[in-house]
Amino acid sequence: MPRPAASHNRTGQPRGSKGSANPPRQPQRSKYRHVFATHAVQRDSCLSPDAQATPSFVGFRNLMVLVLIFSNLRLMIENFRKYGVLICFHCHDYRRQDVIYGFLLYFLVPCHLFAAFIIELAAAQQAKSALGRMKKASGADTCKKQEEARKSFNSTWRIIAFFHAINATFNLAIATYVVYYHIHHPGIGTLCELHAVIVWLKVCSYALTNRDLRHALLHPNPAQPLPSLYKSCPYPQNISWANLCYFWWAPTLVYQPVYPRTPSIRWTFVLRHLVEVTGLSIVIWIASAQYAAPLLQNSLSNLLVLDFVSILERIMKLSTISLFCWLCGFFALFQSFLNALAEVTRFADREFYGEWWNVSSIRTYWTTWNKPVTNFMRRHVYSPLVGRGCPPAAAQIIVFLLSGVLHELLVGVPTHNIIGVAFAGMMVQIPLIALTDRLQMMRGVRGKVAGNVIFWISFCLVGQPLAALLYFFAWQAKYGSVSREWQERGMKGGLGELLRRR
Amino acid sequence: MPRPAASHNRTGQPRGSKGSANPPRQPQRSKYRHVFATHAVQRDSCLSPDAQATPSFVGFRNLMVLVLIFSNLRLMIENFRKYGVLICFHCHDYRRQDVIYGFLLYFLVPCHLFAAFIIELAAAQQAKSALGRMKKASGADTCKKQEEARKSFNSTWRIIAFFHAINATFNLAIATYVVYYHIHHPGIGTLCELHAVIVWLKVCSYALTNRDLRHALLHPNPAQPLPSLYKSCPYPQNISWANLCYFWWAPTLVYQPVYPRTPSIRWTFVLRHLVEVTGLSIVIWIASAQYAAPLLQNSLSNLLVLDFVSILERIMKLSTISLFCWLCGFFALFQSFLNALAEVTRFADREFYGEWWNVSSIRTYWTTWNKPVTNFMRRHVYSPLVGRGCPPAAAQIIVFLLSGVLHELLVGVPTHNIIGVAFAGMMVQIPLIALTDRLQMMRGVRGKVAGNVIFWISFCLVGQPLAALLYFFAWQAKYGSVSREWQERGMKGGLGELLRRR
Repeated sequence: MPRPAASHNRTGQPRGSKGSANPPRQPQRSKYRHVFATHAVQRDSCLSPDAQATPSFVGFRNLMVLVLIFSNLRLMIENFRKYGVLICFHCHDYRRQDVIYGFLLYFLVPCHLFAAFIIELAAAQQAKSALGRMKKASGADTCKKQEEARKSFNSTWRIIAFFHAINATFNLAIATYVVYYHIHHPGIGTLCELHAVIVWLKVCSYALTNRDLRHALLHPNPAQPLPSLYKSCPYPQNISWANLCYFWWAPTLVYQPVYPRTPSIRWTFVLRHLVEVTGLSIVIWIASAQYAAPLLQNSLSNLLVLDFVSILERIMKLSTISLFCWLCGFFALFQSFLNALAEVTRFADREFYGEWWNVSSIRTYWTTWNKPVTNFMRRHVYSPLVGRGCPPAAAQIIVFLLSGVLHELLVGVPTHNIIGVAFAGMMVQIPLIALTDRLQMMRGVRGKVAGNVIFWISFCLVGQPLAALLYFFAWQAKYGSVSREWQERGMKGGLGELLRRR
Repeated sequence: MPRPAASHNRTGQPRGSKGSANPPRQPQRSKYRHVFATHAVQRDSCLSPDAQATPSFVGFRNLMVLVLIFSNLRLMIENFRKYGVLICFHCHDYRRQDVIYGFLLYFLVPCHLFAAFIIELAAAQQAKSALGRMKKASGADTCKKQEEARKSFNSTWRIIAFFHAINATFNLAIATYVVYYHIHHPGIGTLCELHAVIVWLKVCSYALTNRDLRHALLHPNPAQPLPSLYKSCPYPQNISWANLCYFWWAPTLVYQPVYPRTPSIRWTFVLRHLVEVTGLSIVIWIASAQYAAPLLQNSLSNLLVLDFVSILERIMKLSTISLFCWLCGFFALFQSFLNALAEVTRFADREFYGEWWNVSSIRTYWTTWNKPVTNFMRRHVYSPLVGRGCPPAAAQIIVFLLSGVLHELLVGVPTHNIIGVAFAGMMVQIPLIALTDRLQMMRGVRGKVAGNVIFWISFCLVGQPLAALLYFFAWQAKYGSVSREWQERGMKGGLGELLRRR
């Protein structure tokens, strides 16, 4: 047996000499071609733990993308062979009444914004006259005056707040009532309810912001000046019809007298983004009709008999398509639509979302995926609560409670099933946040990857398809095939009936 | 409407000020909480083409891994509900004769290596006496002597080469005959054929290397010295039983008198790698029995009626499982098994493969995935051919032809269907190499990604499952269910019959 080559021991080998073991591409005309020392130095397999450098795995990333495309193309072929083409323009039956009520709400809901404007107009008048009186009485007993002024401001605010509350509550209550009782179609209902919630948030922000602006006018505090941005339009100049209309259409839920603006509208930008919105909407529609609908339909029987393995299998199959629709919908709404709207309104702050797909904590997800709502909650709920001495954790829970109610309104009301799944989904976030916050504090990237994985699984791979399945089931239990099946079995329709019987 | 804030125009905004727009986590006890300027600066959506920095998409990488796991877990549930457990120890029926012939070949095949050793022993004796004669006659007419010596060497080499050729050919021919006609089980057959091919390559390398070593001894050329590594065991000392046995077991196909060696055997390393081999073998076995077998079985009817959409769908479904088995098999053989063998033999050059998963050219794939064979082909086929004036492109085609023949031997013979698919698969590589070589010359990463994608699709997602399907079909046509079906239809078995009828 040959003796070990002492010059090539495990440690003494220079790494740079690796390439020298390979023969040159165009070998020289040497006589001794068969004796070339192929194995000249000590080398490790690149996947071995001994290897000094970890190899790149970029090829496996490409492979993953390819396998995803291939396996979903295969499922599309399978789906086509099983169901044929399910996309159909005439199959979307909506009642004439739904459309009429939808249009009615579309024109009625913004009126509450105008009502808020009228309330603010009156408040501004009152403030102007109060300011006049205060200026006349200046120089008198300041301390007593200030106390009186504070009391007067607070009592006036209570009246204004009362009218605003009435106005805002009526907005949400009327829209919810109409959608729940008179608009059967869940798509039209969702649009109406979403519109009402947006206007409700805008009304709240308009009222609260103007309250503080008014206070700053009447009782200025030099230590806490207003943002310099607002100087170009001080209170009460901002209580104007034009200013309100801008806020009405601006892609934000947070009222400011002045916003950063872009110098001009790039119409090609608008067009490109509207084309994206249209294209993605069609893609989502096809995906729902061709892939999600039959899947949801044939999971009903499994849900009915509580066959958990089958339910799990259905949720796993549903997760890919719901994830796809969610990503497309997110891009269509938050990137394409809001950017188009911002361009038309020359609204310069386009941070409608952050890099939520990289989050390692579920808390960060909720503060980055939907910046308009986050900004509203932070300015008008969280900060005021903490400012009044509420512990931050409690303030966060209150924000999630409010958010849960709004989610339930947006999902439960249009589907006519206020079953609390959307609300419960928001509540589940609180322990998940506690868990991923801990993971995030771990050293290295492992905790971050684990947090990101928990986010995707809990939110996109389990949460959304499960919620979609439950609301679809509840809908079918009330109106659809499940209801008919129950009637055949001599049961009354409705999920409540199902739960009572179990 | 508020005037545009001139200080926040599209270009003048400092990027670093981004964070300043977010309120502090723990807000100060300010009175004016509702007037905070949420929208203070111009910002772009991070996915927008306007955005100055491309965001990280590392979260989507995690998502891809999760979706792959989820969708394949779902397919596993589906498979289980459809077929139950298909894994079964007693179902692997092999004939007693197969095992006997397998063991016979296992002991017979290495004898050809010993025969090669005896031939070399005789050649070394002859060389030693020739060297003695040359030394005695030194100082005489050198030019004439050299010419005579060259002639004498070549005529002797022709005799040696004849015996080596007989020996090597008999090795391959006997093994192939026995496997094709007497070993029915394709698994046992593949092992025997693989063993025979490995020994055949080792015999060839042993003969060719010793020929050049002998030539260097008899007619030394100071301008082209032998590798310094070989100095510790010069010819003819290397023609020893111990040296041959080391080459017999060393994880290489290329003979060298001396190899770089490690100082000691780490038995924990060996154990860990053998555990990996065992574990991965079990995983591959389960994957084949539970997932690949029913898939192959129920694609037969589609192949029989040439339903191309269904065949495509089957290949796409098969591709995931064949890819999985291929990756596991690659790791088990080239990383775990060869490293364990190298550790036991203290073989220091562990470069059994390169980073073939990142290749952007199919040429690079074939030179990196299987380094032992690449080293053999380069040293004993490609370099000598190019050295004799053969154009490199032609030499490469010859290498691929030889490789194609060996692949067909390894797949066609054990499955008793020399249908040429494996050979054709190797031949298809030549145009693919020409294509990806062009892509690789493109600037930027696009060409590289495209080359990598072409590699994965052609090789793993289409090539392998298609080949597996065709050989399985040919097998079934000769022995299995398809054959029975044909007999029912009054056709004789065999793929040839099928092709003749079409």
